[in-house]
Amino acid sequence: MRLVGRSGWICSNLKNTLARIFTSSSRMAKSKFEYVRNFETDDTCLKNCYIVVRLDGRNFHKFAEQHNFLKPNDDRALGLMTCSARSVMEDLDDIIISYGQSDEFSFVFKRTSNWFKRRASKLMTHVASQFSSSYVFYWKDYFGDQPLLYPPGFDGRVVLYPSNRNLRDYLSWRQADCHVNNLYNTVFWTLVQKGGLTTTQAEDRLKGTLASDKNEIMFSEFDINYNKEPLVHRKGTTLIWEKLEETVTKSVKLPNEAGEEVLVTRTRRRVSAHHCDVIGNQFWEEHPNILEDDNC
Amino acid sequence: MRLVGRSGWICSNLKNTLARIFTSSSRMAKSKFEYVRNFETDDTCLKNCYIVVRLDGRNFHKFAEQHNFLKPNDDRALGLMTCSARSVMEDLDDIIISYGQSDEFSFVFKRTSNWFKRRASKLMTHVASQFSSSYVFYWKDYFGDQPLLYPPGFDGRVVLYPSNRNLRDYLSWRQADCHVNNLYNTVFWTLVQKGGLTTTQAEDRLKGTLASDKNEIMFSEFDINYNKEPLVHRKGTTLIWEKLEETVTKSVKLPNEAGEEVLVTRTRRRVSAHHCDVIGNQFWEEHPNILEDDNC
Amino acid sequence: MRLVGRSGWICSNLKNTLARIFTSSSRMAKSKFEYVRNFETDDTCLKNCYIVVRLDGRNFHKFAEQHNFLKPNDDRALGLMTCSARSVMEDLDDIIISYGQSDEFSFVFKRTSNWFKRRASKLMTHVASQFSSSYVFYWKDYFGDQPLLYPPGFDGRVVLYPSNRNLRDYLSWRQADCHVNNLYNTVFWTLVQKGGLTTTQAEDRLKGTLASDKNEIMFSEFDINYNKEPLVHRKGTTLIWEKLEETVTKSVKLPNEAGEEVLVTRTRRRVSAHHCDVIGNQFWEEHPNILEDDNC
Amino acid sequence: MRLVGRSGWICSNLKNTLARIFTSSSRMAKSKFEYVRNFETDDTCLKNCYIVVRLDGRNFHKFAEQHNFLKPNDDRALGLMTCSARSVMEDLDDIIISYGQSDEFSFVFKRTSNWFKRRASKLMTHVASQFSSSYVFYWKDYFGDQPLLYPPGFDGRVVLYPSNRNLRDYLSWRQADCHVNNLYNTVFWTLVQKGGLTTTQAEDRLKGTLASDKNEIMFSEFDINYNKEPLVHRKGTTLIWEKLEETVTKSVKLPNEAGEEVLVTRTRRRVSAHHCDVIGNQFWEEHPNILEDDNC
Repeated sequence: MRLVGRSGWICSNLKNTLARIFTSSSRMAKSKFEYVRNFETDDTCLKNCYIVVRLDGRNFHKFAEQHNFLKPNDDRALGLMTCSARSVMEDLDDIIISYGQSDEFSFVFKRTSNWFKRRASKLMTHVASQFSSSYVFYWKDYFGDQPLLYPPGFDGRVVLYPSNRNLRDYLSWRQADCHVNNLYNTVFWTLVQKGGLTTTQAEDRLKGTLASDKNEIMFSEFDINYNKEPLVHRKGTTLIWEKLEETVTKSVKLPNEAGEEVLVTRTRRRVSAHHCDVIGNQFWEEHPNILEDDNC
Repeated sequence: MRLVGRSGWICSNLKNTLARIFTSSSRMAKSKFEYVRNFETDDTCLKNCYIVVRLDGRNFHKFAEQHNFLKPNDDRALGLMTCSARSVMEDLDDIIISYGQSDEFSFVFKRTSNWFKRRASKLMTHVASQFSSSYVFYWKDYFGDQPLLYPPGFDGRVVLYPSNRNLRDYLSWRQADCHVNNLYNTVFWTLVQKGGLTTTQAEDRLKGTLASDKNEIMFSEFDINYNKEPLVHRKGTTLIWEKLEETVTKSVKLPNEAGEEVLVTRTRRRVSAHHCDVIGNQFWEEHPNILEDDNC
Repeated sequence: MRLVGRSGWICSNLKNTLARIFTSSSRMAKSKFEYVRNFETDDTCLKNCYIVVRLDGRNFHKFAEQHNFLKPNDDRALGLMTCSARSVMEDLDDIIISYGQSDEFSFVFKRTSNWFKRRASKLMTHVASQFSSSYVFYWKDYFGDQPLLYPPGFDGRVVLYPSNRNLRDYLSWRQADCHVNNLYNTVFWTLVQKGGLTTTQAEDRLKGTLASDKNEIMFSEFDINYNKEPLVHRKGTTLIWEKLEETVTKSVKLPNEAGEEVLVTRTRRRVSAHHCDVIGNQFWEEHPNILEDDNC
Repeated sequence: MRLVGRSGWICSNLKNTLARIFTSSSRMAKSKFEYVRNFETDDTCLKNCYIVVRLDGRNFHKFAEQHNFLKPNDDRALGLMTCSARSVMEDLDDIIISYGQSDEFSFVFKRTSNWFKRRASKLMTHVASQFSSSYVFYWKDYFGDQPLLYPPGFDGRVVLYPSNRNLRDYLSWRQADCHVNNLYNTVFWTLVQKGGLTTTQAEDRLKGTLASDKNEIMFSEFDINYNKEPLVHRKGTTLIWEKLEETVTKSVKLPNEAGEEVLVTRTRRRVSAHHCDVIGNQFWEEHPNILEDDNC
């Protein structure tokens, strides 16, 4: 505690007064500026629609080159994408399914989600942010000692789908895209890596070819049956929630009794990864709880 | 090259046919699904407005606890925020100024920016993503051996400001917010750390006090002059582009002549950090090129 | 044709030059200004959703007073509303159903409508415009010699509904609103017109009453069974398209033959008005073609 | 009051009960359906921007044919457009200027307008509605006994302009459009009406001509100086608010005194029409109060 004389008291009092003036002016200042809040616009997503957030890697072609990604598919990179997507899903209960391939991942929020009051900006920035920080955070789990050279970027968008059919068609579209690209990339890099062609020659060779031609090139020239290529490359990765029943041993102690151990069954949810077809009906029939009823 | 007999040829031919059928159906599939693209809506930002993207840390109160951030301000954490913001700015020429305090950072795109065709979703997800991956990437530069426990999240939003006055008022609003919060936090943690109060007692003590009262508590009881506290805490951090003239020595060799060394002056841009008042006119008069003319 | 001498030629030539200068500057002018088009934003309605445009009369309380509308319902005014709505529907094939009560009318565009490229602004302004001009145009058909004192205004809005259930709930909401208001208005004006109460007394009398109380007042005091009141007042007006099969006589003349008359059956569509319950299932079962399948 | 016997009482009581059931179910019904309100999205216009609502006649080419509009300009039709626009402006104080030509009219709301809480849908539908009902209402004032054959339609849109320069460029764009179209139409119909060409011949004749060529055709072949054509056709119609000072005689009677007449000066606002250039600076210098300061 400071010792203050009479003049000190006066001084302190004066300071007090000055501070009060300063305060009220700075307080006024803040409220004077606060009108700028009203320039923010409402971007609430239409209710009763599935909300899809899709992320795409920025300049990932270059990123892949610089980090020596294997061609046509680098399983470490795919694993890291899936791991980052899983991190997003575990953070956000309302994501019912997500689908990824190459350097993109789509996240589907349930129709009735009220997360972040359905504000599009909050939904997509949160997903983009969580995914990106996870990508760097988990990098070493997939690339070990190979260093990450710079922080990568992903951009995102929000799209709404009113019906189950629309949503399934969206996922089918992404999986068909995966198929088309992977088929091309597989034969392209086979021609280069095993056939000894330059990339330009491989490109020329594939110009105008149909899927059947590509299958045929691989089969007849390289003895590769495309349909036996890994599912994760051909079908991409689908993440859903899975319910697990666990039986655990629990110590129970009732009052005035000796403790005893009992078996307890509990249900947990965890994210499971699938590399299967999502275009046909089978997947959806096997997992009937992903989609909600249309007419709700 | 495989040797194929007649039956092999037949087989291959059949396969070919089947593949062709498969192909054309999968090709049709993709185009059949592509209609879902049209569900995406256009979110182009109104032209001739400043575009502000603001990021806020998600659950950073808890994050700060778990990572033992110093109170009331942790300079390592503030440094990492600024470093991540710098990484965003260096990635995006069109950001003319950014301002951060605590766990938030605002990025201002120039009025005439046509980056990402002014699509709000792309702008804000890219900023959120780049900032987040940078935060994890540069963590060790600020926290050394202290491990990052999990990937942090930031959410974002976009706000448009039509006039210079509106934009300056936005930045003033954030800096006034910085002042109000920092004053409170400084005296609160002084009461706890130096005054020995519990957090509840400190809260009670500050209930209803004005800024002047807070200044007085610090001055009379702890001999702290708030106005001498570090500027970075009281004013936050403003990042702008700075032009640097450099004189470098360059080797020049004209044809048919011996090479010689010449002095060359070149202009570079780099991001510079300021911890000054941005509410008054002085900052803007000293940096007249940040804002564009209103009536354009 | 004018006779021009040499000087005329010169003069004309000069004028020509000047005009050319003027022209090119005005042409430049227009293209110079055309950038302002890009400030228009896209307001396309999400696909696969029902688009509802609802109109509400502006200051219709006052309008009704000034035009001596009968209380609690003026059948001329209701007829004119319906007639104007019919004019809108006949102008726009894509409206599948419309519902009106009091001074409001809702128009439902089919899910798959691509009218005006689904631009919300075009849809709602066109409906508001066509309805308003029709209201004035057909006024005399309903009010005869009683003059329209000034042009009335209606404002509108657009709302999207993703599922059949949502759309039916919207129409149910409007019809429930019709019921609640009409019950109140009927008993209110009965108390005033037949019971001799002032409007203030009637208001006081009804404060806090339930629907059952209102029914009871009408029944026990005025011998009015509310359920026998005209359906148009209790249920509002629903307009839908109805298919009509017509058998018409047509003259047919084949080449080289005498003409003959044949009977031809043709299908026409026309707007039909209903004053029935649309909350329950019956109406929708009787008109299964109004709604499209949800999962499309 | 009705006399009711015991059975009547029972009956009434039962009815009461039933009504109560009915009531509470219908009350529940309404609240059960009310969730559909939340499907409405917010379309508030960005603050501190000029809000322009532009209306365009729908199928006015056909409408003009059917109502025998004179070519190239029908002064009755232009007068009716202006009269309808005036009706909109008088209804809405916040419109600071409006500009019309041919079958279009643009209305500019002041930057700071908070009319209808700046909701775009409300602003544009109200303007479209009031304009359309006025068009029909005032038809006879311009077309006398010539009947209006059917209710016309106008569609609208909303565009925001952040700066005075943008707004002036918008108005310049519309006036340049007026100039280009009117010049073409004037020479086209001169060729047809005075030159005896068919419309196809006139079209061919004008293909590829510059403004100077068109001026020359009119001058050399028909002795028409385009610059002497009526300003209303060449420049369109600009409506602004004008302040009028009026000196009126008022009877004044003070208590206990004989009444006397005094002169009172009062200011009124009224809409005034101008047919002048709005592209250059003169108009804006003469009316400095239309635009607000940019940096606000």
